[in-house]
Amino acid sequence: MLIVMSNSASQEDVNSVIATIEAHGWQAKPIPGGERMAIGILRNIGPVDPAIFLGMPGVRDAIPVSKPYKLVSREMKKENTRIPLGDGSVVIGGDKLILAAGPCAVESERQALEIACAVKRAGAVLFRAGAFKPRTSPYAFQGLGEKGLQILAKVRQETGLFIVSEATDHEVCDLVEEYADIIQIGTRNMQNYRLLKRAGQAKKPVLLKRGMSATIDEFFMAAEYILSEGNDQVILCERGIRTFATHSRNTLDLNAVPYIQKESHLPVFIDPSHAAGRRDQVIPLARAGAAVGAAGLLIEVHSCPEKAMSDGPQSLLPADFERLVAELRYMNFKI
Amino acid sequence: MLIVMSNSASQEDVNSVIATIEAHGWQAKPIPGGERMAIGILRNIGPVDPAIFLGMPGVRDAIPVSKPYKLVSREMKKENTRIPLGDGSVVIGGDKLILAAGPCAVESERQALEIACAVKRAGAVLFRAGAFKPRTSPYAFQGLGEKGLQILAKVRQETGLFIVSEATDHEVCDLVEEYADIIQIGTRNMQNYRLLKRAGQAKKPVLLKRGMSATIDEFFMAAEYILSEGNDQVILCERGIRTFATHSRNTLDLNAVPYIQKESHLPVFIDPSHAAGRRDQVIPLARAGAAVGAAGLLIEVHSCPEKAMSDGPQSLLPADFERLVAELRYMNFKI
Amino acid sequence: MLIVMSNSASQEDVNSVIATIEAHGWQAKPIPGGERMAIGILRNIGPVDPAIFLGMPGVRDAIPVSKPYKLVSREMKKENTRIPLGDGSVVIGGDKLILAAGPCAVESERQALEIACAVKRAGAVLFRAGAFKPRTSPYAFQGLGEKGLQILAKVRQETGLFIVSEATDHEVCDLVEEYADIIQIGTRNMQNYRLLKRAGQAKKPVLLKRGMSATIDEFFMAAEYILSEGNDQVILCERGIRTFATHSRNTLDLNAVPYIQKESHLPVFIDPSHAAGRRDQVIPLARAGAAVGAAGLLIEVHSCPEKAMSDGPQSLLPADFERLVAELRYMNFKI
Amino acid sequence: MLIVMSNSASQEDVNSVIATIEAHGWQAKPIPGGERMAIGILRNIGPVDPAIFLGMPGVRDAIPVSKPYKLVSREMKKENTRIPLGDGSVVIGGDKLILAAGPCAVESERQALEIACAVKRAGAVLFRAGAFKPRTSPYAFQGLGEKGLQILAKVRQETGLFIVSEATDHEVCDLVEEYADIIQIGTRNMQNYRLLKRAGQAKKPVLLKRGMSATIDEFFMAAEYILSEGNDQVILCERGIRTFATHSRNTLDLNAVPYIQKESHLPVFIDPSHAAGRRDQVIPLARAGAAVGAAGLLIEVHSCPEKAMSDGPQSLLPADFERLVAELRYMNFKI
Repeated sequence: MLIVMSNSASQEDVNSVIATIEAHGWQAKPIPGGERMAIGILRNIGPVDPAIFLGMPGVRDAIPVSKPYKLVSREMKKENTRIPLGDGSVVIGGDKLILAAGPCAVESERQALEIACAVKRAGAVLFRAGAFKPRTSPYAFQGLGEKGLQILAKVRQETGLFIVSEATDHEVCDLVEEYADIIQIGTRNMQNYRLLKRAGQAKKPVLLKRGMSATIDEFFMAAEYILSEGNDQVILCERGIRTFATHSRNTLDLNAVPYIQKESHLPVFIDPSHAAGRRDQVIPLARAGAAVGAAGLLIEVHSCPEKAMSDGPQSLLPADFERLVAELRYMNFKI
Repeated sequence: MLIVMSNSASQEDVNSVIATIEAHGWQAKPIPGGERMAIGILRNIGPVDPAIFLGMPGVRDAIPVSKPYKLVSREMKKENTRIPLGDGSVVIGGDKLILAAGPCAVESERQALEIACAVKRAGAVLFRAGAFKPRTSPYAFQGLGEKGLQILAKVRQETGLFIVSEATDHEVCDLVEEYADIIQIGTRNMQNYRLLKRAGQAKKPVLLKRGMSATIDEFFMAAEYILSEGNDQVILCERGIRTFATHSRNTLDLNAVPYIQKESHLPVFIDPSHAAGRRDQVIPLARAGAAVGAAGLLIEVHSCPEKAMSDGPQSLLPADFERLVAELRYMNFKI
Repeated sequence: MLIVMSNSASQEDVNSVIATIEAHGWQAKPIPGGERMAIGILRNIGPVDPAIFLGMPGVRDAIPVSKPYKLVSREMKKENTRIPLGDGSVVIGGDKLILAAGPCAVESERQALEIACAVKRAGAVLFRAGAFKPRTSPYAFQGLGEKGLQILAKVRQETGLFIVSEATDHEVCDLVEEYADIIQIGTRNMQNYRLLKRAGQAKKPVLLKRGMSATIDEFFMAAEYILSEGNDQVILCERGIRTFATHSRNTLDLNAVPYIQKESHLPVFIDPSHAAGRRDQVIPLARAGAAVGAAGLLIEVHSCPEKAMSDGPQSLLPADFERLVAELRYMNFKI
Repeated sequence: MLIVMSNSASQEDVNSVIATIEAHGWQAKPIPGGERMAIGILRNIGPVDPAIFLGMPGVRDAIPVSKPYKLVSREMKKENTRIPLGDGSVVIGGDKLILAAGPCAVESERQALEIACAVKRAGAVLFRAGAFKPRTSPYAFQGLGEKGLQILAKVRQETGLFIVSEATDHEVCDLVEEYADIIQIGTRNMQNYRLLKRAGQAKKPVLLKRGMSATIDEFFMAAEYILSEGNDQVILCERGIRTFATHSRNTLDLNAVPYIQKESHLPVFIDPSHAAGRRDQVIPLARAGAAVGAAGLLIEVHSCPEKAMSDGPQSLLPADFERLVAELRYMNFKI
């Protein structure tokens, strides 16, 4: 934190800022400049709230300098995090573009297996499907619960696909950890701290989705919660942010990918399905997500989207997904 | 939902849309226009996802017409909801401007009582303070828990102030319901459906804060969750939305107040403290919140903000709060 | 600007940053910290682009410290700017709340005079109406041009109201300066630098509207263009920003008012009509704008809104305006 | 426009809406529904402002149904617009990915030729460089003016590259039309209607950049201004929108590309340089822009970015640009 004094600040104002810094147990470092004094804050653990100083007399600005996160930072760990699954034949953050595909929700064994076989054939290595669904309407389908997870375990057994499924709260997390290979934390839960802590104690990797209006710093802090509990197998997933634009459900923020890769060692996935919210934008955005350099793509595929119990309209048909994979191969991505 | 066909749509395209509507169990109503055909959807229960139709051949647009919420709507209930507290001497949504004030977190009995006495003297009728705190950093003060609630009960007993305190998840909600007069649901939990349902079963009023990037429709749908479980004592609270602006922590959306009042019968509060995030904007925004017509204000007050364990920098001093109340009285608000 | 080095930056990286700073003619000030080196930039004239440094090896961040504006800053001038009109009986930035009211566009002498008399009677001291209109559609009414300005001059003569009217480009500015008392620069032209310079050379005050997605720093820089040409009679006008919210045309950013008042000596107006875009939100937002501490309000009033040639739907009727003024008086604003 | 009545609207309310519609010369079409009446508006020319109806008694909502633009719409013209340059060897909107590269501003003949030769060698067919520059600061380099355009003409002559350069107002447009092959209209001028009209009368293609907070409908309406004057050679350029995100200057909105391609016949370019604002994001975003299906890329390249007179920090070095083109070729784009 750098406290910038007004050019008319008195020595008393400066002393008062220094006293406040020291009262918090931090160290104050005055930096005289051409026109005005600035005061650096050192030895703080965790972020300093600028508002502490913004109201003080003679203070013009309070500017965060250091980043609030540590463990997710590339400063802490230079090499990219690689997350091997199973026997290590699939590595997230490795050379290959990871394709995770499947329906929004598990609806039945038959549905799950049919879609799983199709996406596996096309090139997917992960099967994504929800057994517990957070829904906007109280009357909407809420997922099959544990039965859904059992179906997913069967999908893994029959197809060899690894399973990623969402934990909607800390209690559900116990079940998801038991059955799935990767625990997903959804957009609405990015700041559900109790769930984040629970996921940090899990023995399975975690796929953490960015909140709809989260800054990257906030996204990193949510991941920090997981890492600080001891689980460093975290995948970050960009899935679109809320903006003024109305031509899509959200705006996919691809600028975030090179930024995350610069700041952090964690792998990044892209979810074009939720960013678009409508099928006709999914394939172009999936190609863009691969091209920007994401480690993987999370794509909704349903063999009968018009009968899907949730999010059908943004799901690709298996044939669309095949076409997408063909296009990605044509663009020379290793799948 | 209104499906607008392209001017080059074939009869087959139209039939296919009608068939899809009917396959969902809804009724299709073709509306021929000058240049193009539109098709209305009737008899749907709950919202229809536009994306179902956006990908179909010949479809140009799919436009939601009816609102997804029912119980919160003024169409359902014409008169304003009034929420009496205790013996009815305080009525939320009545003639008086309700002032809820207090520290971000309960820190000790002494601190709570000192602040409570000060804000009561100035004109507050509600004491707001958290016993359970959702925090961005895992190392930050997480609240006193049940002990904090016991202190709050004591504050009520000693001062006569009614208590509003946050429930951070469905389990915590049991405790808050027991001790407090109003259960608060925070911004990050606006779409925590399990908590919303639990609050809907409570026998106490609920103060629901708007999510940082929630539309008013989403805000209403969250309230609908509570009402649909049988609890119609809901207060909506606008607390600032996330925008590109950086001169404040959030942007207080006062346009929302007349809109909510038009669409819904529920009372609206304004929280200028969280919208500002810095003390020097709180008093002006509090005045504006009263002037726009809010039923109440939620204001952070701390007798020693620089030592507050959370959100100190946006807290008013008791003397500032007194000045605010004097200004509101000068503006002829009934307090 | 503060350049924050990575904790793994080499001495060579640091030297290279220093060399780059010096190559621009600025002065580098190394600031060793606990974990990492930071380097301050001094003696720069005008803003430094952070991106110059963001790509360099060993650089973690580049953080603007000083503000890019000078003349609009309260550091430059402590006292509030007061702008007297005519013989000084009306002072913008003085003790009274200034009411500027009138139709979106001058349509005829009769229309203008009728509305002017009504708003004058109610308490307005400024008449706002456009003679040159920027319109989204090429087929829409584009204003009466110079004839409109002549009508406005007549309105002043007959009613004693001062006139504010928009200059849509540097050529139109010549005419507006001749006829009006205050030159308005519209939202879409906030960064029309040629127009800003021309307004800076005018002998009349300028009312500058904030761009729809302008930060306050950008808003100040636009005002700086005017002041730097010698015209320090500038009024800043907040009129709503673009956000994700859809319940109003724009979101009125009232947080901006105390921020502007802290940072700058220039008076601030609020335009609730354009922020709302619909009549039913104008009066509540106007009250809020007064309550937050604005120096004046800019309000669209039309005696026959349903026949207005532009922006009728957001115009108040003269009787609504009268009611608003009564409410403001009840709230003890001096008008 | 569809007017949705409240379920408690009286017959009188309905009649009053119908009368208002007819008073505007439009046709009203009542559409009785299950719970409520809706009223369609037919035969309107140009968009209808919802706010006309939003304040009327018994009106619940007013929903735009038809799109405000005509000429840019794919309904008006099914086939993609193709824009041949010169002898037709280069076609924008054809099979090849068009690369437009060059410095932000022309600084000297030597600089321009050096960069032009480098980008031509790498695969660019268009040279982009500004002779007239809109600048945030009054003290910044404002461009070489006509001399800059003469240098650009020389670049074309020596290298065979076609020239795209910005017209900052209607007067400058005369010069740019004379010297350049494509007239660029910048972000800040997207709603400069006088300039749009002038560009609509030009005999050269126009590259129109999206405003920083423009919806796609507004973007289309700006293009409509150009087409309605007779010039149908328009290229739309997405260059990033303003959002809450701070890790990049703007957020590149790639969702817009498939949407524009569905709604309009006009070709779309992507400008990753301005979206990023920092060099390290430009190459990944350029790859993403190609992959999403853009017709072309607009990329800033400078042989000595640290000495560039504007926007140096977001410019690629010629060697970076070469690497980008190699990557694009590896991804099998035809260049």
